[in-house]
Amino acid sequence: MAPLFIALVHYPVLNRIGEVIASAITNLDLHDLARSCCTYGVPACYIVTPLADQQALSHRLTSHWIEGRGGEILPERREALKILKVVDSIASARQDVFARTGKMPVQWASTARKENGSLPHAAARKILEGDDRPFLLLFGTGWGLVPSVFDECDAVLAPIPGAGAYNHLSVRSAVAILLDRLLGGA
Amino acid sequence: MAPLFIALVHYPVLNRIGEVIASAITNLDLHDLARSCCTYGVPACYIVTPLADQQALSHRLTSHWIEGRGGEILPERREALKILKVVDSIASARQDVFARTGKMPVQWASTARKENGSLPHAAARKILEGDDRPFLLLFGTGWGLVPSVFDECDAVLAPIPGAGAYNHLSVRSAVAILLDRLLGGA
Repeated sequence: MAPLFIALVHYPVLNRIGEVIASAITNLDLHDLARSCCTYGVPACYIVTPLADQQALSHRLTSHWIEGRGGEILPERREALKILKVVDSIASARQDVFARTGKMPVQWASTARKENGSLPHAAARKILEGDDRPFLLLFGTGWGLVPSVFDECDAVLAPIPGAGAYNHLSVRSAVAILLDRLLGGA
Repeated sequence: MAPLFIALVHYPVLNRIGEVIASAITNLDLHDLARSCCTYGVPACYIVTPLADQQALSHRLTSHWIEGRGGEILPERREALKILKVVDSIASARQDVFARTGKMPVQWASTARKENGSLPHAAARKILEGDDRPFLLLFGTGWGLVPSVFDECDAVLAPIPGAGAYNHLSVRSAVAILLDRLLGGA
């Protein structure tokens, strides 16, 4: 079974009008992604932001639960948040996967948009089950990853199919659903 | 296909030390559940709280997006948040399902704990596919629904199976994953 790493990318992503921005850290993204990753056995979840103040904010928000009083009250939250690692770029996340596993990861991206040639979730699950290379799955915040990031990925996962045309899940929900589809039990 | 309604219950739920409480509304619960419900075709998501100030807070948080400036900037958020309905009790949610469908709902509960006789998700999906009665699926906030609520339900869904013993998903993630398991496409 291949280890699947997750990265929540705050740069480079698009804003509502298609500009490239660095989006802001959201406290509940950190908690929800950490808890989902811990549930599905993800070894590390990278919080990607090049902004020093946003990196400091991430550390402040998580240290309350890891070293501070929060972890005494809720030890299971400490366990989850320890999975997060703040890095300055996708390249740094890849280097960290290499440092942990000895291999550079296969890189996948997620998107809410229909793309030609996207990888169905059942096929992605089969690949993970039959591979021993590490995988890094990118999630974009804001209005999604910039096109050049998709170009650098080995595959783009199919969007999550709902009941109709509405495709505006929160990134917290999208991470939870995709981890369940790729790694969840019956 | 049976219509599946969702209720996010803030009372009666347990706190960390097993006391019965009314928990506080969380802004991102409203947004994430509305977006997930809209994605999977859920007709209404009930926000259950008997506290007048918490009901007022819910209306204030959502009206910015439904009638206010937020909806002009993000019309898709308005579309989602309109699915939410604040009610004072689970009984009121049931009455509203009756008013919409002409039938009282079959009532299911979710839990993170392993219970004897719980309903597997694939079996629950089959029931929904073959039924035309409405269903109401309850999610507890805080440390979960009180035992008497489980006793009043027709079934309790199996917990979401992760990779190990860790079972502390956020309610936002749990709703997303269960909707995907019960209603999601391939």
